[in-house]
Amino acid sequence: MNNFTYKSPTQVVFGKDTVKEVGQYMKALGKRVLLHYGGGSIKRNGIYDTVIQSLKAQDLEIVEFGGVVPNPRYSMVLEGIDICRKEQVDCILAVGGGSVIDSAKAIAAGYYIENEDYWNDYFMVHKRPTQALPIGVVLTIPAAGSETNRGTVITNDQTAFKRSIGADCMIPKFAIIDPQTHYSLPAYQTACGCTDIIAHLLERYFTQTTNVDFSDRLLEASLKTMIHYAPLALQHPDDYDIRAEIAWCGTIAHNGLLGKGRQEDWGTHDLQHELGAIYDITHGEGLAIMFPAWMKYVYHENPTRFVQFAHRVWDVDYAYDKEEETILAGIEKMERFFHDLGLATRLHEIQIDERDFETMAEKLVLGRDHAGNFMHLKKEDAIRIYQLAK
Amino acid sequence: MNNFTYKSPTQVVFGKDTVKEVGQYMKALGKRVLLHYGGGSIKRNGIYDTVIQSLKAQDLEIVEFGGVVPNPRYSMVLEGIDICRKEQVDCILAVGGGSVIDSAKAIAAGYYIENEDYWNDYFMVHKRPTQALPIGVVLTIPAAGSETNRGTVITNDQTAFKRSIGADCMIPKFAIIDPQTHYSLPAYQTACGCTDIIAHLLERYFTQTTNVDFSDRLLEASLKTMIHYAPLALQHPDDYDIRAEIAWCGTIAHNGLLGKGRQEDWGTHDLQHELGAIYDITHGEGLAIMFPAWMKYVYHENPTRFVQFAHRVWDVDYAYDKEEETILAGIEKMERFFHDLGLATRLHEIQIDERDFETMAEKLVLGRDHAGNFMHLKKEDAIRIYQLAK
Repeated sequence: MNNFTYKSPTQVVFGKDTVKEVGQYMKALGKRVLLHYGGGSIKRNGIYDTVIQSLKAQDLEIVEFGGVVPNPRYSMVLEGIDICRKEQVDCILAVGGGSVIDSAKAIAAGYYIENEDYWNDYFMVHKRPTQALPIGVVLTIPAAGSETNRGTVITNDQTAFKRSIGADCMIPKFAIIDPQTHYSLPAYQTACGCTDIIAHLLERYFTQTTNVDFSDRLLEASLKTMIHYAPLALQHPDDYDIRAEIAWCGTIAHNGLLGKGRQEDWGTHDLQHELGAIYDITHGEGLAIMFPAWMKYVYHENPTRFVQFAHRVWDVDYAYDKEEETILAGIEKMERFFHDLGLATRLHEIQIDERDFETMAEKLVLGRDHAGNFMHLKKEDAIRIYQLAK
Repeated sequence: MNNFTYKSPTQVVFGKDTVKEVGQYMKALGKRVLLHYGGGSIKRNGIYDTVIQSLKAQDLEIVEFGGVVPNPRYSMVLEGIDICRKEQVDCILAVGGGSVIDSAKAIAAGYYIENEDYWNDYFMVHKRPTQALPIGVVLTIPAAGSETNRGTVITNDQTAFKRSIGADCMIPKFAIIDPQTHYSLPAYQTACGCTDIIAHLLERYFTQTTNVDFSDRLLEASLKTMIHYAPLALQHPDDYDIRAEIAWCGTIAHNGLLGKGRQEDWGTHDLQHELGAIYDITHGEGLAIMFPAWMKYVYHENPTRFVQFAHRVWDVDYAYDKEEETILAGIEKMERFFHDLGLATRLHEIQIDERDFETMAEKLVLGRDHAGNFMHLKKEDAIRIYQLAK
C-alpha cells in the first residue's frame, strides 16, 4: 500500500425531495448565484422550477447561464468567466451531470486567472489553480462523480484537445442528490452513466500496487452493485431504490476514497478522451468500447489481477490452471454486459473507422512520456488498442 | 434507503513515517498545543520523541497532559478543561487510541461550556456542543475510529455512567496514521482493537432498513478484510502491509460512510458500555462477549439478514431450507473467531457473574424507552442477553 492523504469535505445531501433544500445550502456560499445548466431537460422535468423557487425563497439573486453540452467546451468556460466578472457573482450552482459540474469548476477557477493563458498554462502544462468561486451542485445524472471531487475535464473546441485539471479549491461545497430526479433520464443516458461509474471503479481496480486488499474488496463490492442495478434501472426507470443504489455508488466510485493507497490507471479514460475530442461520442459509450480493448491488450502485464477480476467480479469459475481462459471469459462477460445495456462495444458500430487512430494516438502522448499506469502506453500501444476496438 | 447527509472533512495522512509531519499540520491549528496522551507507551516506543521534535521544529508551544486511561474519565476531562483555560492553549493534539481522542474531544468542547452542567446537560440530556478547540490526532491504536468522526464516549467516575456525545465541531481536523506505530501493540490490544473495528461494522450491518445493498456489500467487504487480517496481525505484528490494511479499514469502518442510508443499531455497544462502566473491562473484549449473545437473542427479528451474514461474511453454505442452522453456524463461526484471537467470549471467563445484570439492564434504559434499533431492547431483554453471555 502506498502512502496517501484523504478527505471528502463536500456536504452530500442525499434522498427524496432534497432539491427543495438547495436555497438554504446556497445561501451559505453567497448572495449572487450563477445558475449553470445544460440543454434544458431540467426545464422539462421540473427541476429548474424547484431550484428557482428554493433560491428565491432565500432572496438569492440569480444570473442564468444554460446550454452546457456533453464534453463541455472551453469557449463556453471563457464566456462563463466573463459573465461572472461582469455580473459580479459570488458563487456558482451547477444543476446537471458531469458536464455541467465540470464546466462550473473550470469557470470557478478561471475567474481568478487573469494575466495567464488559462488553457495553456493550466490544462496543457498542469499548473494547479489555487482559488475558485464556491460551487454547489444539484446532481441530475449520476455518472461523472464530479460532484464531490476536485477534477474537471474540458474540451478545447479550437484545438480538439480534451484535458483535465484538478485542485482542492474546485471541490464543490455541497452536492444535492435526489434519485427521483434521475427517473426521467433516457435509457441510453442511464446506460452511459452506469458505464461511466463502472469505468471509474475499473481505473482504480487495475493497479500494479500490491497489498491493497481492502480497497480491492471495496471496489469489487461497488462493481457488483453496479452490475446488479444498471440493468434493473433500464427495466424500472422510476424505481427509487434502484436509482438510489446507483446514485450513491456513483458518488463513492469517484470521490477519491476507493483509489487510496494504490496507483490508479486512467489509460482507458485518456484513450476515450481522444475519441471524444474528435467524434463527440458520449463518454460512457466510448468507455464501453475502449475498456474491453484496453483489457485485451494489457492483461499480460499482470494476469493475476485479471484472474481475480474474472473470479470475484464476474463469478467466472474456471479451472485454476486455465489462467488465460479465465481472464478472457471475464473480459467477455464485461463486454457482453455493456452490450446488453444497449451500448456499442466496438467502433464500427458507431461508424468510426481507423482513419484517425494515428492522430488520436499521437495526441494521447503529446507532451508526456506515456498514458496510463497499469501499462505505460506509448503511441504504438494506443494504435493497437484502437485497432482491437474496431 | 433512508435520506442522509454525509461528509468526511478530516484530513487523513496515512503511511510510513507520516508522524514526522505532525508539526506542520498542527501549526495550522494554533501556536499553543495541549499534548494529550495515555499511559506512557508512546514514550517507550519513540512516538513521543518524534512528535515533540516535529512540534518544536515548527516553534509550537507544548502543554503536556498525559495519563488518559481506557474508558476515559470525566474527572480527567474536567482537569483538562481547567488546564486549557489556565494555559490558554489554542488547540489539542491527541496522541493515542480512541480513549485519548475521546478525552481530547470532550475537553475541546467542554472548554467553551462555562455556565452549564456539562455532564448532565450534554452527556445525559443530549444537548449538542456548538464550538470546540481544534483537534489533531496521531493514531497509535487502530480501533475506535474516533480519529475522523464526531463522537466521544466518556465514563463518569462518580456515577459509573458511560455516555456519548457527538457534534461536527469535535471532528478532528487531521489524523495521522502510520501503521508502523502499531507494531508495538501487544497481542491482546491488537485483538481488542480488531474486534472493536468489526463491532463498528456489525452495528451498521444489522439494520431493519431495506434496499441498502450497496452499503451491505461495502460492509461485507470490510468485515472480510478484518476476518482475514486480524489473525495475521497476531502472527506477524511488525508486518507493515497487514497493519496497514487493518488501520485503513478501522478508519473507514467508523467515519460514518458505511452507515449512510440505513438505521444503525448500537444496542450491543450500549450493553457493553454498561459492563465497562462497572467492571473496567477492555472495550473490544466486552464486545467479543456481548455480540454473540446479542445475536442469539435478536436473530428472530429478521432471520434473512442473519442468513445473508452467515453466507456472505462467514461462507456458511447450508441448505437453503435450513435457515436456523445457517444463522447459528454464522454466529458460532464469529464467536470462535473472537476466541481464536485470544479473547473471552463469555462473562464467566473474565470472572463476571450475574450479580449486576439487573443494575446494568436498569441503567441501560434509564432516561430512554429502549436501547438499540434492530430490536428495541427493554430492561428484560437486556437481562436475558446478559444471561446468554454468561
